[in-house]
Amino acid sequence: MGAETIRCKAAVAWGAGERLVIEDVDVMPPQLGEVRVKLHATGVCHTDAFTLSGDDPEGVFPAILGHEGAGIVESVGEGVTSVSVGDHVIPLYTPECGECKFCLSGKTNLCQKIRATQGKGLMPDGSTRFSVNGQPIYHYMGTSTFSEYTVLPEISVAKINPAAPSNEVCLLGCGVTTGMGAVTNTAKVEAGSCVAIFGLGGIGLATIIGAKMAGAARIIGIDINEEKFPLAKKLGATECINPKDYNQPIQDVIVGITNGGVDYSFECVGNVNLMRSALESCHKGWGESIIIGVAGAGQEITTRPFQLVTGRVWKGSAFGGVKGRSELPAFVERYLAGEFKLDDFITHTMPLSQINDAFDLMHEGKSIRSVIHFGKV
Amino acid sequence: MGAETIRCKAAVAWGAGERLVIEDVDVMPPQLGEVRVKLHATGVCHTDAFTLSGDDPEGVFPAILGHEGAGIVESVGEGVTSVSVGDHVIPLYTPECGECKFCLSGKTNLCQKIRATQGKGLMPDGSTRFSVNGQPIYHYMGTSTFSEYTVLPEISVAKINPAAPSNEVCLLGCGVTTGMGAVTNTAKVEAGSCVAIFGLGGIGLATIIGAKMAGAARIIGIDINEEKFPLAKKLGATECINPKDYNQPIQDVIVGITNGGVDYSFECVGNVNLMRSALESCHKGWGESIIIGVAGAGQEITTRPFQLVTGRVWKGSAFGGVKGRSELPAFVERYLAGEFKLDDFITHTMPLSQINDAFDLMHEGKSIRSVIHFGKV
Repeated sequence: MGAETIRCKAAVAWGAGERLVIEDVDVMPPQLGEVRVKLHATGVCHTDAFTLSGDDPEGVFPAILGHEGAGIVESVGEGVTSVSVGDHVIPLYTPECGECKFCLSGKTNLCQKIRATQGKGLMPDGSTRFSVNGQPIYHYMGTSTFSEYTVLPEISVAKINPAAPSNEVCLLGCGVTTGMGAVTNTAKVEAGSCVAIFGLGGIGLATIIGAKMAGAARIIGIDINEEKFPLAKKLGATECINPKDYNQPIQDVIVGITNGGVDYSFECVGNVNLMRSALESCHKGWGESIIIGVAGAGQEITTRPFQLVTGRVWKGSAFGGVKGRSELPAFVERYLAGEFKLDDFITHTMPLSQINDAFDLMHEGKSIRSVIHFGKV
Repeated sequence: MGAETIRCKAAVAWGAGERLVIEDVDVMPPQLGEVRVKLHATGVCHTDAFTLSGDDPEGVFPAILGHEGAGIVESVGEGVTSVSVGDHVIPLYTPECGECKFCLSGKTNLCQKIRATQGKGLMPDGSTRFSVNGQPIYHYMGTSTFSEYTVLPEISVAKINPAAPSNEVCLLGCGVTTGMGAVTNTAKVEAGSCVAIFGLGGIGLATIIGAKMAGAARIIGIDINEEKFPLAKKLGATECINPKDYNQPIQDVIVGITNGGVDYSFECVGNVNLMRSALESCHKGWGESIIIGVAGAGQEITTRPFQLVTGRVWKGSAFGGVKGRSELPAFVERYLAGEFKLDDFITHTMPLSQINDAFDLMHEGKSIRSVIHFGKV
């Protein structure tokens, strides 16, 4: 209460396709139902690059990108009751209001309370909290973590155990939770299952971890880049396959080596052809395929309906089906309990001033995740 | 045991596109693990017409079609223990062996024990039990109910309450169970749900009955033929919509009138465009669409993956997900208990000699179901 505007460093995306520029950004105090968060760390994710490229139909500029952060509450606006100054939090691009039709359904994590404004780069009241020399800067995914300070609705932060290291658990703000949650919350993989994971980037690796934790008996990793196989196997893949080694469609290969198909498959790339392969790799009668990857605008998936009539199920997953405020803190606790590790995902760390290097590394396929450290972690 | 070959009347499909011919057919005694059934009644279903048209890639000729029958066991082959002479049964085109991987999975009704031979019009030993003047006649869907007598594997008959009238419960051998089961077994519709049913033929009407029995609060019937609306409403539809009355895509209409979409949708036609409409009529976050209709060979379904990533689920259903031997008898009991009626489905009855009329009525859209009576019912 009574907080002042803070001037801090942030990486501003001035326009599509441009490199980010570190600017002195004014961050207004949190308003009614909002919190201001001092970020400790943020991952740089493919979705940030997708929006920066200009291909995201919802992308607006100038904006502060970033959605995979961790930090502490610096100040709170009027009416905020669920978090306090000093709480450790993970920003949520999928909020949890607990009172909308979606939250109350018990069937989805896709809270829609602030969807309309968030999609336009605005706070729920229709304005922004960022500016540079008086020019408003848009928010991004409701999180804008490429900034030393950011403002979020109270419903868009998950309060976590303060013992958790921000520079690692920031990855639970998107990629790692997305993959693990797709296994545990969306597919509900049972122990002993046979699983295929298409694409061994960050999401695919997190899916492998989730499958291993669920007790899957066989975890087949699929990628055309064999350099990804050693880490996939370290994390739990029981075998890895390169589609380029076969003349048949990869779904036929997988059906062949699994005596009819896998129990669950996960598409972690965003390639619509691979989504079909993933579905058709599933076992007749019960195989379920989960789409995690985000396809390009306008692209479509296709299959013969016979695939579904004979018992396969086609689903998708966003943020792993995980409710941010009520379920994400438990992921942090499981991490702290040593049930899974995050350091394998972090291939590079750097200060905010070098954030463009993180995008370059990603585009060159040289990183799983680069994590930006904001001063003390 | 020790049964003789029986010569009886049957409708033989000598070739694709030809009219059926009533022939004197020799029906061999049941062999190891088989039963011979004296049919009391059989429905005539669109799938019979589909195969007769020549469009069914698995269609073989000459054959005795028909798969929606009811009758009594006339004789049993060696080793048969689960049914006895005189038992009332419904033939099953989806058998239930209870010991294959599929039956043991607990996740599907698609027993595959005899799939290979059944698909070729043969008994499990690779031969046929029908002949006309010594020429072998193929079986169809493992049932061949357009005959006074048929032979089936023991695993392909469901023993039912003998009090059930064969001329009505024969419809539980396919269409009615398919629609009702899609609601109860595949979708597991909860009380209070909002449901859309695309196509108000026999399957669609059975789906309406299933939805009403499940306690759905809103049941929206969709068809371009408004003559079907009164019966749909009588059976439980709370409203009926004709897509031709709107300029928008029907999925947009349904999303609009349901505050975001339906909880469950069912495609009961076999039209791939309608399958997409049914999916996209579902509510974000949790809507599930079930494909029941059978599309033409080679046709494909298409949608944007975003539909699934935002929480919709695409499924299919065959024989309503109902296990024939362990679950179908309970459908008969519910019918006998008055929980649902079947007479509304039966628009025509006739003797076997007039079976071609049943196909004509179906092609002209004048029947829901024609039921063939074999003598005493």
